[in-house]
Amino acid sequence: MENNTMPTIDSETDSHWMSLALEQARQGVGFTSPNPAVGAVIVSGGEMIGQGYHRKAGQPHAEIEALRDAQKRAPDQIAGATIYVTLEPCSTQGRTGACTVAIQSAGIQRVVWGADDPNPAHAGRAQELLEAVGVTVTRGVLREACEDLLRPFAKWITTGLPYVIAKAGQSLDGRITRPAGEGQWITSEAARAHSQGLRARVDAILIGAETLRRDNPRLTLRNGSLKEQPWRVVLTRGGDLPAESRLFTDEHQMRTLVLRDLSFKDALKALAAQGITSVLVEGGANVLGQAFREHCVDEVCWYIAPRLCGAGLPVLAGPEWAQSVALDKVSILPIGDNVCIAGLPVWPNFESVIE
Amino acid sequence: MENNTMPTIDSETDSHWMSLALEQARQGVGFTSPNPAVGAVIVSGGEMIGQGYHRKAGQPHAEIEALRDAQKRAPDQIAGATIYVTLEPCSTQGRTGACTVAIQSAGIQRVVWGADDPNPAHAGRAQELLEAVGVTVTRGVLREACEDLLRPFAKWITTGLPYVIAKAGQSLDGRITRPAGEGQWITSEAARAHSQGLRARVDAILIGAETLRRDNPRLTLRNGSLKEQPWRVVLTRGGDLPAESRLFTDEHQMRTLVLRDLSFKDALKALAAQGITSVLVEGGANVLGQAFREHCVDEVCWYIAPRLCGAGLPVLAGPEWAQSVALDKVSILPIGDNVCIAGLPVWPNFESVIE
Repeated sequence: MENNTMPTIDSETDSHWMSLALEQARQGVGFTSPNPAVGAVIVSGGEMIGQGYHRKAGQPHAEIEALRDAQKRAPDQIAGATIYVTLEPCSTQGRTGACTVAIQSAGIQRVVWGADDPNPAHAGRAQELLEAVGVTVTRGVLREACEDLLRPFAKWITTGLPYVIAKAGQSLDGRITRPAGEGQWITSEAARAHSQGLRARVDAILIGAETLRRDNPRLTLRNGSLKEQPWRVVLTRGGDLPAESRLFTDEHQMRTLVLRDLSFKDALKALAAQGITSVLVEGGANVLGQAFREHCVDEVCWYIAPRLCGAGLPVLAGPEWAQSVALDKVSILPIGDNVCIAGLPVWPNFESVIE
Repeated sequence: MENNTMPTIDSETDSHWMSLALEQARQGVGFTSPNPAVGAVIVSGGEMIGQGYHRKAGQPHAEIEALRDAQKRAPDQIAGATIYVTLEPCSTQGRTGACTVAIQSAGIQRVVWGADDPNPAHAGRAQELLEAVGVTVTRGVLREACEDLLRPFAKWITTGLPYVIAKAGQSLDGRITRPAGEGQWITSEAARAHSQGLRARVDAILIGAETLRRDNPRLTLRNGSLKEQPWRVVLTRGGDLPAESRLFTDEHQMRTLVLRDLSFKDALKALAAQGITSVLVEGGANVLGQAFREHCVDEVCWYIAPRLCGAGLPVLAGPEWAQSVALDKVSILPIGDNVCIAGLPVWPNFESVIE
């Protein structure tokens, strides 16, 4: 089953193939919960002979998908080939069998991965197992991009809490309502469409009671999304929730949950117990303020329209914060004349969110 | 004095030469008050033979500067040449003589300009005068860019009020103060340096009394600026102005004015009476709110840092606004991980600012 020549190792070439594996992985984002999105490609003689990604929990891992693809395309070339995977292959017998065993059995000669297993108990274990059976291993190719893709999974697997994205749409001066008599919308249609794309990444969308009452939102996916409707969660401290709200009456009413009198963190724990690994917080001001005050936000997506309101509801409300929150890995994405500023909160006491 | 061949007219070539005239004009921005910044180039046989810009009120207009430059470089080629000017040449005998006359006397065969004279009484008059003496005229080449450069002058000449730029630096959620115990700055050093560049464009920098008391700013130009220190204006409704403030004690103390108990518009009128044609409003929240409520802002430059404060002073304060203010011609300029969002306010009743 072995080739006479060892596969060549070239970091630029490795990055190229890993970027194709990342493209594969991205196709799975939003569909794989509670598993991470992972992609793989198989390369022999400088040509890609197989590719695949993990499509859904319970279905084959990316490595198996890529091996199956290669079996169809070029069965003779798998022995001696290199497999590129965004995540360290699993080495435990799960629902689908250990990928390290499948890789070795297929005659793959070299395994390259980007991110180590985020579970500290497993990280790097595949290297030992593969090298013991004569397979060459390279770790950390495009590590940062591969880890970015794993962030939601890594949060959940290391803390037991869902990954939380906080989203807001505001005027330039930080307001979410316009003067009386003006329209409801502040951000542009294009910005709102872009922000709706965040819903496709998560297991649940969370709002506060005030947003339910004021906006009566649908919280549905964009037309044509193949993803299952995410859970719709209303966090309330009591008070009336109008029974005629869309969340309680539309065709997805079975996907609506109401959580009452919980801290934000306790709400996250309750959602985790339901198998929810990622949450998009869409406001309003009180629930967003609460999420930040409790250090429960992992990613921020802030949409800003070129309009000044002067007064109105501020985007964040509630008691003063002990500390402001800086963002790291900031991206600034113009969407027409609106802009999306995204980043990762830097928590002064990061440990406090780890259970 | 006339060539046998008419100058060729080609709109792409015209745009090219006008863009060079615009480059000339930009060198004068901030130095020419109360005149506009204007640039000119002279072209003969497909080559630039002269260039110049208006350097300062009382000194020659751009056309004269360009003609003098051509006199030195290629005196034989001026007859029959084309002159490109960002602004319609003046046709009245000012301090420096009518440019239309100078152009004709030099033997220039064709005049191309970008923006018409913003004074409605003069707009287009040079065309008639020049064509009457056999000079070809083309108007409106790169009109929008040329008009953008004239906006401050156009505001002042058509309304008698200074052109007003509103500047602010805020957190993502629209706050200008951080929680107690944190540093004073919200925007980055690079963003603040960029915003200081706005000072070089104006005759005066205006702040409210609360900013004087809280920040004790210098409001000086960046090191190395050749421009005279702009006036520093404090708008106050009464209350104490600390006598030891830098504005009252530093080497530019003679360039500090205090205006008391005036509406924003009346303050602008008082400044116009001092020959001030442009004002940069640097805050705080009350004076910025006042400027917008009175529809007195012509340009907005908003600096946003990737930080959430949750509470603190809002960037705009004061009574509610009757209407929100949308921005037109929006630009989104990332400065590291900060961003500058600039634009031109669209006033619902634009006429109301015209006297």
